Amino acid sequence: MPSPTKNPHLPFGDQRSAPWYGKDIISVKQFSRSDLEYIFGVAHEMRVMVERVGTFDLLKGKILASIFYEPSTRTSSSFIAAMERLGGNVININEVRYSSVAKGESLPDTIKTLECYADVIVIRHPELGSAAKAAEAAHKPVINAGDGVGEHPTQALLDAFTIREELGRMDDLTVTMLGDLKYGRTVHSLSRLLSLYNSRLHYVSPEILRMPPEIIAELEAKGMRQTEHRTLDQALPETDVLYVTRVQRERFESEEVYESVKSAYVLDKNIMSAAKSKMIVMHPLPRVTEISTDFDDDPRAAYFRQMEYGLYVRMALLAMVLGKA
Amino acid sequence: MPSPTKNPHLPFGDQRSAPWYGKDIISVKQFSRSDLEYIFGVAHEMRVMVERVGTFDLLKGKILASIFYEPSTRTSSSFIAAMERLGGNVININEVRYSSVAKGESLPDTIKTLECYADVIVIRHPELGSAAKAAEAAHKPVINAGDGVGEHPTQALLDAFTIREELGRMDDLTVTMLGDLKYGRTVHSLSRLLSLYNSRLHYVSPEILRMPPEIIAELEAKGMRQTEHRTLDQALPETDVLYVTRVQRERFESEEVYESVKSAYVLDKNIMSAAKSKMIVMHPLPRVTEISTDFDDDPRAAYFRQMEYGLYVRMALLAMVLGKA
Amino acid sequence: MPSPTKNPHLPFGDQRSAPWYGKDIISVKQFSRSDLEYIFGVAHEMRVMVERVGTFDLLKGKILASIFYEPSTRTSSSFIAAMERLGGNVININEVRYSSVAKGESLPDTIKTLECYADVIVIRHPELGSAAKAAEAAHKPVINAGDGVGEHPTQALLDAFTIREELGRMDDLTVTMLGDLKYGRTVHSLSRLLSLYNSRLHYVSPEILRMPPEIIAELEAKGMRQTEHRTLDQALPETDVLYVTRVQRERFESEEVYESVKSAYVLDKNIMSAAKSKMIVMHPLPRVTEISTDFDDDPRAAYFRQMEYGLYVRMALLAMVLGKA
Repeated sequence: MPSPTKNPHLPFGDQRSAPWYGKDIISVKQFSRSDLEYIFGVAHEMRVMVERVGTFDLLKGKILASIFYEPSTRTSSSFIAAMERLGGNVININEVRYSSVAKGESLPDTIKTLECYADVIVIRHPELGSAAKAAEAAHKPVINAGDGVGEHPTQALLDAFTIREELGRMDDLTVTMLGDLKYGRTVHSLSRLLSLYNSRLHYVSPEILRMPPEIIAELEAKGMRQTEHRTLDQALPETDVLYVTRVQRERFESEEVYESVKSAYVLDKNIMSAAKSKMIVMHPLPRVTEISTDFDDDPRAAYFRQMEYGLYVRMALLAMVLGKA
Repeated sequence: MPSPTKNPHLPFGDQRSAPWYGKDIISVKQFSRSDLEYIFGVAHEMRVMVERVGTFDLLKGKILASIFYEPSTRTSSSFIAAMERLGGNVININEVRYSSVAKGESLPDTIKTLECYADVIVIRHPELGSAAKAAEAAHKPVINAGDGVGEHPTQALLDAFTIREELGRMDDLTVTMLGDLKYGRTVHSLSRLLSLYNSRLHYVSPEILRMPPEIIAELEAKGMRQTEHRTLDQALPETDVLYVTRVQRERFESEEVYESVKSAYVLDKNIMSAAKSKMIVMHPLPRVTEISTDFDDDPRAAYFRQMEYGLYVRMALLAMVLGKA
Repeated sequence: MPSPTKNPHLPFGDQRSAPWYGKDIISVKQFSRSDLEYIFGVAHEMRVMVERVGTFDLLKGKILASIFYEPSTRTSSSFIAAMERLGGNVININEVRYSSVAKGESLPDTIKTLECYADVIVIRHPELGSAAKAAEAAHKPVINAGDGVGEHPTQALLDAFTIREELGRMDDLTVTMLGDLKYGRTVHSLSRLLSLYNSRLHYVSPEILRMPPEIIAELEAKGMRQTEHRTLDQALPETDVLYVTRVQRERFESEEVYESVKSAYVLDKNIMSAAKSKMIVMHPLPRVTEISTDFDDDPRAAYFRQMEYGLYVRMALLAMVLGKA
C-alpha cells in the first residue's frame, strides 16, 4: 500500500494542507467521484493556463525523476512536458537495462537513490505491483505510469478528462468500447472510473476478446448498465463516446480467423456516418489501421486532442502531489 | 510542401507579424539571398548575446520536441544547447526504435502527438522527404535536422554563416571544396547557398567522387563560376574558404585505389603553407584523418568555431519560427 | 596534466578571482587538506540551501555537457540533479556508441565540439587517463566522473563529505573498509583522502582481495596507521566508519572458495550489535546482498544519505569551477 502522505520538499511549509500533498498515484481504485472532480478542476485550470501563457513557474525548483523500465515515448514525453510547462526540471532515465539494475540492484534501492535527487518519481515498470512497491520504498510521492498488466491510472484519468472536457459531463453518457476488451488495460481502467458516474456501457468485441467477466461483475455490482455486442451497428447510433482499441493479429489462433473479424473493428468515414454529429471518437494511440486516417479531420475525432488532455492531467497530478494545487 | 504559416503558442499574439513566425525549415531551396541576410543578422545577434550574457530568456516557456530517428549527437546537442541558451525547454527523443514507431505508428501520427506537448519540432530521419511529410502533418513549425540523402539545411546555413562571420562577406570569394563531393550532402547544400552570391567554386576530388553533374548544371544556370580539379595545388593559393570533407575507404573499389589517392585529400601544416594567411579551413566534423591535428592551432582552422556558429544559427531559427525574432 | 585555469563563460568577469574558477577536477591527488575543507564548506552551504529552498539560480544560464561513454545512471543522475538544483541546464549524452565516436572521432575532437555548446563538461570513460586527456583538449573545465581503473574523484569527495557531515570531523577516526579492497576503486581513493587527516584504517578482506601493497606503502609513508584483518570481529567494536564494498563471485577461482568466505563480508542487524551506537555504515551502492535490508532502518545506515551528500558535493564542484563559489 502506498503511504497516505509523504514529504516532498516544502520550503515554506504552508502547502501541507493541500489535499493531495505527498500522496502516491498508483491505481484508479484510489479515486472517489469527488477526487475525480477535484483532479478535473485542476486539470482544467492547467488547460486554461497553458492556452493563455504556455508555461508558468508553479513547480519551479522541483525535480521529477522519470524512470522507465520499459520504453513508452508517448507517456514519458507527456510527463516531461508536464513538468517543464510548470517550470520544473526532469531527470529522465530510459536506459534502465544498463543501469544499476543490471548490476542486481533491487527496485526499492533504486527508488531510494532517486529520491535523494528528486522531489517526485514517475515509474513505468513491466511487473504488476511494482509501482506500489516503489511507493512503499519512497519518502517522496510516486506516480504509476503503467505497471505491466496492472494499471496505468494517468491514462484512465486523461481518458475520463477528455470525455469531461469534450462533452461537458460524465453522467448520462453512452460509452461504447470497441476492439480488444480482454487485454486492453485502458478500457478496464476507464470503465472503472465511469462506474462512479451514471452512464451506460456497450462492449463491442470479437468473442475471444470479450470484456473479462470479473470486470463486468464488478461494475454490475456498482449498478453500471452494460451490454455486449459482436458488431458496432446497434450501439453506434446512440453512442456519445466511442473508445477504439487495437485488435492484434497475435491474439487469434489463425490468420483466417483474424481476417474474418477484423473489418468489423476498423472505423472509417463511411461507418461513422451512422453516428451522432455530437459525439467523440477516442483511442489510446498508437493507432495502426483500426481508425482510417480519412476520419482524422472530422471534428468528432478526439484522439489527438486526447493526448493534449493527458498533458493537463499530468500537470495537475504533479502539482497536486507536490502540494501546489 | 510545408505549410506557409503555422501556429506555435503565442500568448500575447503580437508576434504574428514576425516574418518567419510559424514557418517550417525544410530545404535550402526555400531561402532567398535576403532570407539569408535576415537569418545571419539574427544569428549574429545571438552570438553577441551569448558572448555577453551566456543565456537569455527569449524562449522561456517554449518547448522543443527533438526527435532523432537516427543518432547524431553533434546536431542533437547543438539544438538542445540552442533551446536552453534561449531559456526554453527540450523533450529529447533518441530511442525511436523502442517507441510507438516500433508498434507501427505512422510518422504523421507521431508528429501529431509530439505537437500536443511542444511548440516546435526538430526531426532527423533517414528517409528522403520525411521532414516535409512531418511538416505537412504538424500545426507547429518543423525544422529538418537531416533527412537521409535529402537535406540538412541547418548545416548549410551554419556553413554559410561561418564564412560570413569569419570573412565578413559572402560575395567575391573563392571557395574550394575538397574530398568526397559526390556523396557529401553538406557540399551540395552549401554550393546551392553560395549560388545566391557572386563567388566562385573549385571542386577538388578523386574522379569517382566528383561533384554530381546535375548540381554543376544547376549552379551553371545561376551563373556560378565552377572549376574541377584532381589535386589541390592549383586552387589552394587563391582559396578564401577550403571546405574539407572525408574521403571514405568504402567508396573505392579496392584498398589499392584508395591508398593511391587518399594522400591528395589529407591536409596538414605543410600543405597549408601554400595557402593565403587570411583564409579559413572548414569541415563538417567528425574529422578522422583528413585534417592533421598539427593544423588545429592555426588561426585559419575554423572547424571548431564552425560548431559554435551552428549554435547561433540554430538559436536564430528557433527564435524566428516561434515569432520571437 | 589538466591546465590550471580555464575560461568558462563569465559575463561580468568579476569571479575570475574565485579560487577554483576554471579548474579541472581529475584526481583526488590534486586536493590538499585545505582544498577539502573548502569543498566541504561549499557543499555544506549547498545542503543548507537545498534543505531551505530546494533549488536556487546560482548557475542560471550555464550549461553542463554530461558525456558518459559507459552507463552509470546513479552518477549521471546525480550530476544532472546538481546542475538543475543550481538553476543550470544539461546536455545529457549517454548513447555514445551511436555518436560521432562510432564514426572514428577522437576524444579531443568530441570534447572540443561539446565545449562549443556548454560551459562545463562531465565525462565518464572506461579508459584510464581519458579524463585528463579530455581536460587537456578543453578550454572549459572538465570533471572526471570515473575513468576506468583510474579515478572517480567525486565519489571519493562525497564519501569524505559524508563522514564529515555525519560525524562532524575527519580526524581521530577509526575507518574500517570491508570486502573487495583490491579492485574497489572507491576504497583506494577514500583512503588517499583520509591520509590527509589523522585517522586510522582497518582493512578487512579475503586474502585474494587485499588492499594493494603499493597503496599501503603510499599511505604508510604519509604516517597513516593501517591494520589488515581477515574478519570483522576485532575491528568492528572500535569502528567509527564502516565502509562496505561488494565481494564479487567472479573474483574467486571457484564457487566453493567464494561460498566459504562470503558470509564473513555480509552485514546484518545481528553483526552490527557489536558496533558502537554512534558510528556509520557506508556503501558506494548499488548494494546486492552485502548489507541485509533489515539494517536499512538503523540510524547508523548512512548509505542512502551518502547519495544525498553526493548531490551537495557535485553542486559545490560545479559552482566552484564555474567561478560561482
